[in-house]
Amino acid sequence: MLKEYDCWFQKRTITPSINVPQTVISLHDGLVSAQALKEFVSGIERLLEFKPKVQKKFEEEKSAIFLGLIAGMKLPVFEKGNLCAENCCKSKHTDSFIIKVTNSQIFIAGQNENGLLYGVFRFLSLLALGSLKEGFELCESPVSQLRMINHWDNFDGTIERGYAGNSLFYKNGQFDYDDKRIEDYARLLASTGINRVSINNVNVRHKAKLLITKEYLSRAGKLAAIFRRFGIRLFLSINFGAPWSLGKLPTADPLDSSVAQWWKERAALIYKYIPDLAGFLVKADSEGEPGPFQYNRTHADGANMLAKAVEPFGGEIVWRCFVYNCQQDWRDHNFDRARAAYDHFKPLDGAFDKNVILQIKFGPYDFQVREPVTPLFGDLTKTRHVMELQITQEYTGHQIDLCYLPWLWQDIMNFDTARGEKSRIMDLLAPYKEGQSNIEGFSAVVNVGLDNNWTGHTLAQANLYGYGRMAWNPSLTANEIAKEWTILSFGHAQPSAQKIENILLNSYPAYEKYNAPFGVCFMVTPNSHYGPNIEGYEFSRWGTYHRADKDAIGIDRTPSGTGYTSQYSQKNAALFADPQTCPENMILFFHRLRYDFVMKNGETLLQNIYDNHFEGYEQASAMMEEWESLKDLIESEVYESVLSRFQRQIANAREWRDQINTYFYRKTGICDVKGRKIFD
Amino acid sequence: MLKEYDCWFQKRTITPSINVPQTVISLHDGLVSAQALKEFVSGIERLLEFKPKVQKKFEEEKSAIFLGLIAGMKLPVFEKGNLCAENCCKSKHTDSFIIKVTNSQIFIAGQNENGLLYGVFRFLSLLALGSLKEGFELCESPVSQLRMINHWDNFDGTIERGYAGNSLFYKNGQFDYDDKRIEDYARLLASTGINRVSINNVNVRHKAKLLITKEYLSRAGKLAAIFRRFGIRLFLSINFGAPWSLGKLPTADPLDSSVAQWWKERAALIYKYIPDLAGFLVKADSEGEPGPFQYNRTHADGANMLAKAVEPFGGEIVWRCFVYNCQQDWRDHNFDRARAAYDHFKPLDGAFDKNVILQIKFGPYDFQVREPVTPLFGDLTKTRHVMELQITQEYTGHQIDLCYLPWLWQDIMNFDTARGEKSRIMDLLAPYKEGQSNIEGFSAVVNVGLDNNWTGHTLAQANLYGYGRMAWNPSLTANEIAKEWTILSFGHAQPSAQKIENILLNSYPAYEKYNAPFGVCFMVTPNSHYGPNIEGYEFSRWGTYHRADKDAIGIDRTPSGTGYTSQYSQKNAALFADPQTCPENMILFFHRLRYDFVMKNGETLLQNIYDNHFEGYEQASAMMEEWESLKDLIESEVYESVLSRFQRQIANAREWRDQINTYFYRKTGICDVKGRKIFD
Repeated sequence: MLKEYDCWFQKRTITPSINVPQTVISLHDGLVSAQALKEFVSGIERLLEFKPKVQKKFEEEKSAIFLGLIAGMKLPVFEKGNLCAENCCKSKHTDSFIIKVTNSQIFIAGQNENGLLYGVFRFLSLLALGSLKEGFELCESPVSQLRMINHWDNFDGTIERGYAGNSLFYKNGQFDYDDKRIEDYARLLASTGINRVSINNVNVRHKAKLLITKEYLSRAGKLAAIFRRFGIRLFLSINFGAPWSLGKLPTADPLDSSVAQWWKERAALIYKYIPDLAGFLVKADSEGEPGPFQYNRTHADGANMLAKAVEPFGGEIVWRCFVYNCQQDWRDHNFDRARAAYDHFKPLDGAFDKNVILQIKFGPYDFQVREPVTPLFGDLTKTRHVMELQITQEYTGHQIDLCYLPWLWQDIMNFDTARGEKSRIMDLLAPYKEGQSNIEGFSAVVNVGLDNNWTGHTLAQANLYGYGRMAWNPSLTANEIAKEWTILSFGHAQPSAQKIENILLNSYPAYEKYNAPFGVCFMVTPNSHYGPNIEGYEFSRWGTYHRADKDAIGIDRTPSGTGYTSQYSQKNAALFADPQTCPENMILFFHRLRYDFVMKNGETLLQNIYDNHFEGYEQASAMMEEWESLKDLIESEVYESVLSRFQRQIANAREWRDQINTYFYRKTGICDVKGRKIFD
Repeated sequence: MLKEYDCWFQKRTITPSINVPQTVISLHDGLVSAQALKEFVSGIERLLEFKPKVQKKFEEEKSAIFLGLIAGMKLPVFEKGNLCAENCCKSKHTDSFIIKVTNSQIFIAGQNENGLLYGVFRFLSLLALGSLKEGFELCESPVSQLRMINHWDNFDGTIERGYAGNSLFYKNGQFDYDDKRIEDYARLLASTGINRVSINNVNVRHKAKLLITKEYLSRAGKLAAIFRRFGIRLFLSINFGAPWSLGKLPTADPLDSSVAQWWKERAALIYKYIPDLAGFLVKADSEGEPGPFQYNRTHADGANMLAKAVEPFGGEIVWRCFVYNCQQDWRDHNFDRARAAYDHFKPLDGAFDKNVILQIKFGPYDFQVREPVTPLFGDLTKTRHVMELQITQEYTGHQIDLCYLPWLWQDIMNFDTARGEKSRIMDLLAPYKEGQSNIEGFSAVVNVGLDNNWTGHTLAQANLYGYGRMAWNPSLTANEIAKEWTILSFGHAQPSAQKIENILLNSYPAYEKYNAPFGVCFMVTPNSHYGPNIEGYEFSRWGTYHRADKDAIGIDRTPSGTGYTSQYSQKNAALFADPQTCPENMILFFHRLRYDFVMKNGETLLQNIYDNHFEGYEQASAMMEEWESLKDLIESEVYESVLSRFQRQIANAREWRDQINTYFYRKTGICDVKGRKIFD
């Protein structure tokens, strides 16, 4: 019986492909190690229907499962000369683990306690997937150091861009959570490798400003304690204006000594309640939030001041690079919002303290269905930074439409910054090293809420799972992750596993096709960001225009236009600036093209727009049909809930198809060459 | 010192143009008569700085002001043979009054108590305006019987489409009002002739459903008592679904006897608390409100059932005719929302009980800046009905932009329904008579709130004033009303009076010019209805499309299109169906025209659109400049508050101008023939 709530931890009795001993020998005591042991025991119960005996006493020859730290595990398999173990022990990669299976013994050992926990979860996954066999040996290190979840949860219980019910943490201006649910949530996150969670909206407004006061900190401390058992440390989002809004100082100027002192004292208070707090997450000077610009200071001034406040406690500042002019005039063709991240932050490379990490959105806009990777990546060599993704489906269908995001993330990971050798995003993932353009990890707004299935759309659980997996290892493919998730969630049974995997893999291409064409972006309903509104942002202050007229559409971002392409490496700049070499899926992000521009398939741009929109709708319909073919194979509650979302998706896809096609038909008067119906 | 709060009751010492005796002889005792006396005494104090002595004893020869009822006033001036008095006494027009000024006596007499009150207010106005002289005689009857204000106030204190602060009546789910403020409000209304007020939003949701329960009725009764002194009776908006939502019956079917019984008992309860309640105002089957359609009943079934419930208490049902398909598909060119009022209600003519009054919006859409008068007017001969206007500036600038509405209303009053002789709207205003297409009066959503100046924009007070005046006498011109209001509010001083009058009179044409062109409607921001959004409603469910393409714009509503024109009289149908005779200010409401259609001025439609939008902005700017020229002549608080609104209006007008012009330029590629800047 499939339980939506249980996600990829379904109770499902399997026939193990290896011999699993009845005894666990637990070799390390520690908070997270103890949790790892608990997870192991309950995982075995869940999958194999027996409860392993636990013993602390070391017995080298015993047929048992050995859980512990690599350094503490004096066993032959970990001896010198075993390359796998040596790499794990000695590498700078924290959180790594080793799994080794012999005919009578199983070893799961972590480089640290987190590593042990991750090893346990991976072992249980592999067991459920049926991937283990005698002699199996796996040593894994996470490529990213920072694998972070952002919550945009408000204290009133709502979630900004949340599509799965209200907040897990807050209600009516207070912390209000169910310990059991938080524990289950922490398990979901830790099982995919997440090690950091920011617990409140980056827009710190109303009561959320009080989070850094005693009353709220004591509750935050209790929340931190639950996550701590799973190796997850919290971040708090703070309001840069707090010294005056909360502290009643006359200013929040980061260079004012009383402001710096205020933050130091505040940090000391906060760390009393959450001694292992990871630090602060800050959105400053963007979309109405206060920041250093108000005082004619740089973002480095602002971030460094805060960094010094948390530095004595081992804290870090994660500083969002989402800063742009949001009061733009659509009449102005010179200003280009896409340039903002690079223009603001490239000149500050090297100006940030060593406990500041920049959090840079993957694209220059705002989590659009298709936009290029920001040119900052590959070009910051003296500043710690991570990439921000978005798991919650703000622009990708609100968890009504199915949109399997690892499909997009895979493209991002493969993007080649073309600065030096091995310069794909996935190649740059590594701990910070001055002079190298390493990316330290990932951050992403999560897609969960109080809905029983966590994510609104049950299949959107795959995005939560996929984010953690890809943050751990960005070279995992969308296919690999889909297969893993499907089997863990729905079991091995055919044809459902294969069909669900197919549905996932088809979902992103379908959504992209019926959405704004060829990376032109922002043809979406203002504010809500669901459904089409082709000119919804066309005359607004947000700087996201397509300027479609009767002949052409798009923004010229080449050197003859806004010059955005020149922010890229020479090779990429050339690639993007030429419509003949620019990747077609984002050609309208870089170019203003006539509708009769001939695309690679020999058809015009206009005809390609028509084709995509007819096809996108067809593909969405096909997904639903494929789902309907599973009616008798899937637990009915899950089947019906997903089906009802598909029905809404079809309606949405139809609006996208028809509105987009009609819009361009009205503009051009040119019919579909294949004679399909375009409404006038 | 001008006080915004005092509106057209400014304290301002004048030199009277007549001899005003020191004594008032008050000849009638009654609640409203007593209020009339109070108003007279305070009015004289306000304008002439003395307090008249009041006596009850009749002294025929005394130099005095005589206040009373016509029937009770045995004076030579009211004797038989005096045509004016006879008309007033004998006519069916209730609420009429006579004013007569001799060298030593002044007579103010009402056909009833309300008439006396209206006579007092009129006398005071005329005194302030300087229009009285010895021998002056005026006998006036209101042309409309029902002169009603609608409040769209919600119990949480917000006002739907309110732009002047929160509700005068409610806060936090409860009645919460200041008696003094309500009295001042009732005075403002009664002084212009208003005799009915509905006190809650026609969308009866949340706590407002409890208005017809004991707890709330007792507070409503106290509110009614304040209005009662000013001759104003209350309506309550009710929710048609109350029998089941409140009464827990299984249905709200109007033909179900238990439902009818429920409403009878409920009416009895309500009238215990408000014995002179005018009745219920009902919005049914529209925009999500419940109604008879849910039970396959007609609107006559629904209204008549309620009518029978209030009939024993002298109550009436005012039933809104705002019923249309609000789930329309933009792809469907056959359905036409404009047809809805006529299609729904013409077949029901004669089916309504005699205490049902239909409230019909003036136009077929929804209070647009320019739309034709609904064809129902002039064509209902067996059904009581009134016309609904909108004082609150939902589509006309939110009381940020100045938009003097009597300008529009004057056009409506002059609209000729062309069914029989004397068939202009203003000619049809008369009490109901079967077989005639009389209109009994007006209803309108008000523009007031808790703002100190009542209406947000101080000059929007003119709309509140103008509505009452025009409801009383629809043949008053916009100019006449502007002059009256300006002098009463700002005094006679030149040049300010003349300039303010000019500003008012220029405001509507300016707003119309920079808005959606030529009656095409709904190019406004969805939901908020402020500012341009040219395709904001183009693909929505509301049925209000313009379908602009590269060659043409508008909906063909002639017989070759949706046939809407055929709902009019033969003469009007022909007039509107021919683009050569159709009034140009609404030509795009009736026709789909090519941009190169040649208008009466010899220019193309497109060029006329450009011209209007350049001119509308220029005129808005000129209004602000004219206001700025009054800087030293107007009390600075008022000057600055109005100036800041003008500044916002200019910004809005600029957006309208540029977005509309750019939109059509992008569609056509055709430049302005005068070479003015259109942004691309």
